[in-house]
Amino acid sequence: MKYEKYKSQLSYSYSLGITLTIELLKKHPKDVLDIYYHSSFSGEGKEIIDNLAKKNGINPILNDKIFNIVSQKENVYCIGVFKKFNSPIDETKNHIVLVNPSNAGNLGTIIRTSVGFNMNDLVIIKPAVDIFDPKTVRASMGALFNLNFSLFDSFEDYEEKYPRNYYPFMLKAKQKLKDVAFVKPYSLIFGNEATGLPDSFLKYDSVIIPHSHNIDSLNLPIATSIAIYMATEKDF
Amino acid sequence: MKYEKYKSQLSYSYSLGITLTIELLKKHPKDVLDIYYHSSFSGEGKEIIDNLAKKNGINPILNDKIFNIVSQKENVYCIGVFKKFNSPIDETKNHIVLVNPSNAGNLGTIIRTSVGFNMNDLVIIKPAVDIFDPKTVRASMGALFNLNFSLFDSFEDYEEKYPRNYYPFMLKAKQKLKDVAFVKPYSLIFGNEATGLPDSFLKYDSVIIPHSHNIDSLNLPIATSIAIYMATEKDF
Repeated sequence: MKYEKYKSQLSYSYSLGITLTIELLKKHPKDVLDIYYHSSFSGEGKEIIDNLAKKNGINPILNDKIFNIVSQKENVYCIGVFKKFNSPIDETKNHIVLVNPSNAGNLGTIIRTSVGFNMNDLVIIKPAVDIFDPKTVRASMGALFNLNFSLFDSFEDYEEKYPRNYYPFMLKAKQKLKDVAFVKPYSLIFGNEATGLPDSFLKYDSVIIPHSHNIDSLNLPIATSIAIYMATEKDF
Repeated sequence: MKYEKYKSQLSYSYSLGITLTIELLKKHPKDVLDIYYHSSFSGEGKEIIDNLAKKNGINPILNDKIFNIVSQKENVYCIGVFKKFNSPIDETKNHIVLVNPSNAGNLGTIIRTSVGFNMNDLVIIKPAVDIFDPKTVRASMGALFNLNFSLFDSFEDYEEKYPRNYYPFMLKAKQKLKDVAFVKPYSLIFGNEATGLPDSFLKYDSVIIPHSHNIDSLNLPIATSIAIYMATEKDF
């Protein structure tokens, strides 16, 4: 088998399942290395993938072994193997900035919401969870294939390259989300799941999503999604 | 060992970890059956739990075995065992209604957000995932211990007992979330992760959260949280 169990060092990753593989073939056909079918794969999803593969000159491979290697627990009958791609952020667009995100599922969920509200440009400040982890791809429901993203070693590096209006979301902020008029181009900035953003971000136009005292904080994808919804509400 | 690996048929469940066990002791002290400490448990969290346990006449038990039985993979040094409780919904309050929720983590995340915005009354229409599953308790970050909830066999049963303004969230709805003025007392209603709500709910004042065509739908906890935020925004 020429492919191995996923590790972040690999130059390729996997789309596990029908929905993700359809999105991969639609949005990044040139990055597809192979498509694998399980011998029990059938139905409408298979027809769609058959057609998309054919259109792109790809011959799906029937091979059950790769499913044991790549997708241990999940009920998956179709796997896309794709080359990790670059799709850098657009300077003219608004950005989502995640500082040190640590959970693959959370990152994927944020990408799904972000693309869902047409905020297709994501900045990740390292260290961070691997954006190509199949768990991220899965939680994004394929929205990763619609995303532009850039990684930076520090927020300062990003700031130098993209000066604009920064709105960091922090529990210590004074300005409530409902009172903010976001001025384009802007960046909505969120901290790590456990630690949030450091106090140094209070120097920007920081924002709080007020909540009751019965919880310590909102879950990161929830806070991010509420912020994105509010920032983009008038566009929909 | 008098306690076993969690199953939904048991009359008790577990809070795994410090945060959850603190919330349990604060909000449901009378339902605590036992508190277990791992031999390597120490630090500030232990002091807080020591004090809360003492205040409630509970003697924490030092026993490493239960950690292998109850919390296989997780890094947990403290376990609360609690009796499953009833804490029925309040007729005068607004409700969140989940029709056939199927994922324990999603349910817990929704409870966390809901309690975070003071919507403490949750209705679950069966069949549904177990609200006392330790995965739900964990994802709620202990907010479950602040929650009132009631289970119904069908939406009709709920409707008969609690006539009020219903706002089902559906992709086929015509009214956008941003245009809705929620009239109290109301219920925000959400369908199953995979199937959403059936068309029969279109007869109520149905609501859509509009999004781009690049995703099929928002993830359930995300949609629920945006709706709760918008419905309660003026209270915060």
